[in-house]
Amino acid sequence: MAKPKKTPRPKAQTPKGFADYFGSDVTERTAMLSRIAEVYHRYGFDALESSAVETVEALGKFLPDVDRPNEGVFAWQEEDGDWLALRYDMTAPLARVYAQHRGDLPSPYRRYTMGPVWRNEKPGPGRFRQFYQCDADTVGTASMAADAEICAMLADTLEAVGIERGDYVIRINNRKVLNGVMEVAGLSGDDKEAERGIVLRAIDKLDRLGPDGVRALLGEGRKDESGDFTKGAGLTAEQAAVIVSYLEVGVAQLNAHKAKVSRQVEVVKSGNPIDQAAFGGENPNATTLQMLRGLVGGSLIGKQGVEELDQVAQLLFSQGYRSDRVLVDPSVVRGLGYYTGPVYEAELTFDVQNDKGQTVQFGSVAGGGRYDDLVKRFTGQEVPATGVSIGVDRLLTALRATGRIGSETHGPVVVTVMDRDRMADYQAMVAELRADGIRAEVYLGNPKNFGNQLKYADKRNSPIAIIEGGDEKERGVVQIKDLILGAKIAETATHEEWKDRPSQFEVPRSEMLAKVREILAG
Amino acid sequence: MAKPKKTPRPKAQTPKGFADYFGSDVTERTAMLSRIAEVYHRYGFDALESSAVETVEALGKFLPDVDRPNEGVFAWQEEDGDWLALRYDMTAPLARVYAQHRGDLPSPYRRYTMGPVWRNEKPGPGRFRQFYQCDADTVGTASMAADAEICAMLADTLEAVGIERGDYVIRINNRKVLNGVMEVAGLSGDDKEAERGIVLRAIDKLDRLGPDGVRALLGEGRKDESGDFTKGAGLTAEQAAVIVSYLEVGVAQLNAHKAKVSRQVEVVKSGNPIDQAAFGGENPNATTLQMLRGLVGGSLIGKQGVEELDQVAQLLFSQGYRSDRVLVDPSVVRGLGYYTGPVYEAELTFDVQNDKGQTVQFGSVAGGGRYDDLVKRFTGQEVPATGVSIGVDRLLTALRATGRIGSETHGPVVVTVMDRDRMADYQAMVAELRADGIRAEVYLGNPKNFGNQLKYADKRNSPIAIIEGGDEKERGVVQIKDLILGAKIAETATHEEWKDRPSQFEVPRSEMLAKVREILAG
Repeated sequence: MAKPKKTPRPKAQTPKGFADYFGSDVTERTAMLSRIAEVYHRYGFDALESSAVETVEALGKFLPDVDRPNEGVFAWQEEDGDWLALRYDMTAPLARVYAQHRGDLPSPYRRYTMGPVWRNEKPGPGRFRQFYQCDADTVGTASMAADAEICAMLADTLEAVGIERGDYVIRINNRKVLNGVMEVAGLSGDDKEAERGIVLRAIDKLDRLGPDGVRALLGEGRKDESGDFTKGAGLTAEQAAVIVSYLEVGVAQLNAHKAKVSRQVEVVKSGNPIDQAAFGGENPNATTLQMLRGLVGGSLIGKQGVEELDQVAQLLFSQGYRSDRVLVDPSVVRGLGYYTGPVYEAELTFDVQNDKGQTVQFGSVAGGGRYDDLVKRFTGQEVPATGVSIGVDRLLTALRATGRIGSETHGPVVVTVMDRDRMADYQAMVAELRADGIRAEVYLGNPKNFGNQLKYADKRNSPIAIIEGGDEKERGVVQIKDLILGAKIAETATHEEWKDRPSQFEVPRSEMLAKVREILAG
Repeated sequence: MAKPKKTPRPKAQTPKGFADYFGSDVTERTAMLSRIAEVYHRYGFDALESSAVETVEALGKFLPDVDRPNEGVFAWQEEDGDWLALRYDMTAPLARVYAQHRGDLPSPYRRYTMGPVWRNEKPGPGRFRQFYQCDADTVGTASMAADAEICAMLADTLEAVGIERGDYVIRINNRKVLNGVMEVAGLSGDDKEAERGIVLRAIDKLDRLGPDGVRALLGEGRKDESGDFTKGAGLTAEQAAVIVSYLEVGVAQLNAHKAKVSRQVEVVKSGNPIDQAAFGGENPNATTLQMLRGLVGGSLIGKQGVEELDQVAQLLFSQGYRSDRVLVDPSVVRGLGYYTGPVYEAELTFDVQNDKGQTVQFGSVAGGGRYDDLVKRFTGQEVPATGVSIGVDRLLTALRATGRIGSETHGPVVVTVMDRDRMADYQAMVAELRADGIRAEVYLGNPKNFGNQLKYADKRNSPIAIIEGGDEKERGVVQIKDLILGAKIAETATHEEWKDRPSQFEVPRSEMLAKVREILAG
């Protein structure tokens, strides 16, 4: 008979690649998402919360053709043989929901959704296997007005959460323009798919590699700093020239934009009102579009792309989204497959320090575009759709970097316990504070060691501790310790400034609330 | 060579037992949770969002002693051999988080958390495999003040989300009292575990089976309506009498409470202010506690339980939580294992119709208690903890039943498209409305068939449609259709009341916003 195994003590450990979020990390995200939802709602988008679990079949990319179909997703097999998986994004579930409920949903269907998604990838520093996405999509219309609307909404959303105008730009492009340019460069046809892939990836890396790096990738290839060699597309000089001219349009546009923004910043600093008409009086995207028209030459798909891009740019311009906010940028690619027309990206343009201490632009926080084939998988019918996904954690990081959030610097008021038998008195104090909207709590640990109570208040980052011993009780007073001031005094002990300001007060019990209010008001 | 299989079209189907939530189902839940979080925060509780995925080892109840440890949980094996699973509640993750981060967390640690949990159970009508939980726990203190605080917070929370005083009661009990009574009834000792289990389950069913049903379960057993027989605990008449007297204390208390509440309702209806002193002037729980003291006799554990229960009741009473809100109720059991001391439950006392059309009390929406062994699994040290879990979907249902939520009756204002080329004009209209905080959207479908646009507005439950054709544009006006009024007129076509009130107005374009505002203001 097998001996029963002794169960070892389990490890208290978040699974690899997962994280726990505490306090303001949670509440600040919730507050940001709530501000985003408000804008989306005002734009007529409806909330959707689909189940976190989908059939592997519905997720699509990961069909169970192997024994364990968990490449990229967390998947498991049900007793009845079905494979289920956690969603890896919000778009695949939207396609499933739309196909399933299309009889009941309005058409077009505008929806937004926010929540966690899961990726079964190798975790790395700052790369998690569960993270938040916040998406807005319009399903069921081919109108460019839908794409323009989402770009406008994205700009409004960034401002609503606290990114100032001038600190962001929505860069727009169209995949059909790219395809047209490829055609002109002789890269159309099924046999050129590999080359097209390399070109798209190279363009996508313009920011990081610069024009020379891209040029190397268009030709033979490129050796990076570590000595690794990336094979290039092997284009002829003539072919590469087409792609490079295309990119130069984007670079020129971007530089013009940067010059404008820095002029704008100067105006703001000088205290004069910005002359919006002068800033964006004529649609500066028109020049870019004219250049693109030349580049796509006779390519039908290319012409159509420029036309669509023009429509989106016009719609945005006429609604007041000038080049300080929306910019036609040919270098926007947004991944390889998937997108079929307009693509767009929200970039934050202010400087931050990267891990290596270099000053860099903050970069992309949201992106999206038009995709027309996702619902077709289910229904056989093509359903045009367009949508955007905000990188929730990236945007939160940006808001923290600009000091836009992180205002909750204090914890609750802590009422200390001097006399265990008078817990009801202490509870009455916190009840009085809470009723006034003040965050407050009684110390609930072992009250014997008073030092521990003050250490606790310190750990809670409390602004105030309240003390009522037997003596105070008898005299009808309480002691109020201003812990913020106390900390300041401790920091600058020799400083004259604090000498005459006590950090502890005795007030009548009946004046406790008023005094706490006074201290909290600063 | 195997022929490549043709992939069949995937089914667009939520997995069995999972659901999608649309529009107000999502936003109303979010709003309710946000109100709950506000109360918890004011009480000094900190937000926590732990990962949805845990190691099966950390979840504990489901150790991998079988090939697939997914009894009750959704679990899968990682490539490195580890088993991961979706959390099935918020308490097991809390124990893991506390054990893992205890060096950094304040002690005691008050935390709240809200989010989905997953159960791998057979789905049934209204029973889902993913649902929301909303928990608040205090870890690291044995003080009864922690339990009292959570009961007070629960009462405040219910009122904050919209449950009126008199429509709920927090029922409190203590597992040690129950254990003491069992001891008196001769049901202590390891060999009586099965009997104790049956007795606890029987008490837990008092609401549903009534005193006679419980008595049958204490004796030989009980045949239910379907003819199924449930084996009883086989107690002697003497033993059963102890349990029954115990329950009668609870029933008496409950009846006294009901009488008081109905008196209170009468007072409210009469328009006179409630005399709180008269209503709860003396702690009515004192009587119950006195009776319980008699029942537990010489049992040490029983006496300790009554003492603890008394402390919690006293603390609540002295903070103004009278018997209209908090009630000592010996019939509260809250599950079998797990809880070690105080247990509590929030019950909604108003009537609703059940599935069979019977009038019943709404019942429990939240419950919890003290558990002392959960963290010990990880650290070897006993860490006392107490906490409550709100049944989010139940509480939402209750708020809908009382008409407390569901106020968003209208969709967005819809601007119709009469001239596809003037999309910019229509976008400008919605921009103007949105800037004023009014939810609005342009119709983005194919505008050819105007009837479809009005059908869309209907499906969106729009209050207003705006129309600007070429003629209107020329004359500088817009047509505004009051769809709410229109629907009323259509419903009561013969009614004189509406005869002279037009449901469509022509106003100058410059007055569009003012007119829309006027209609929306009702």
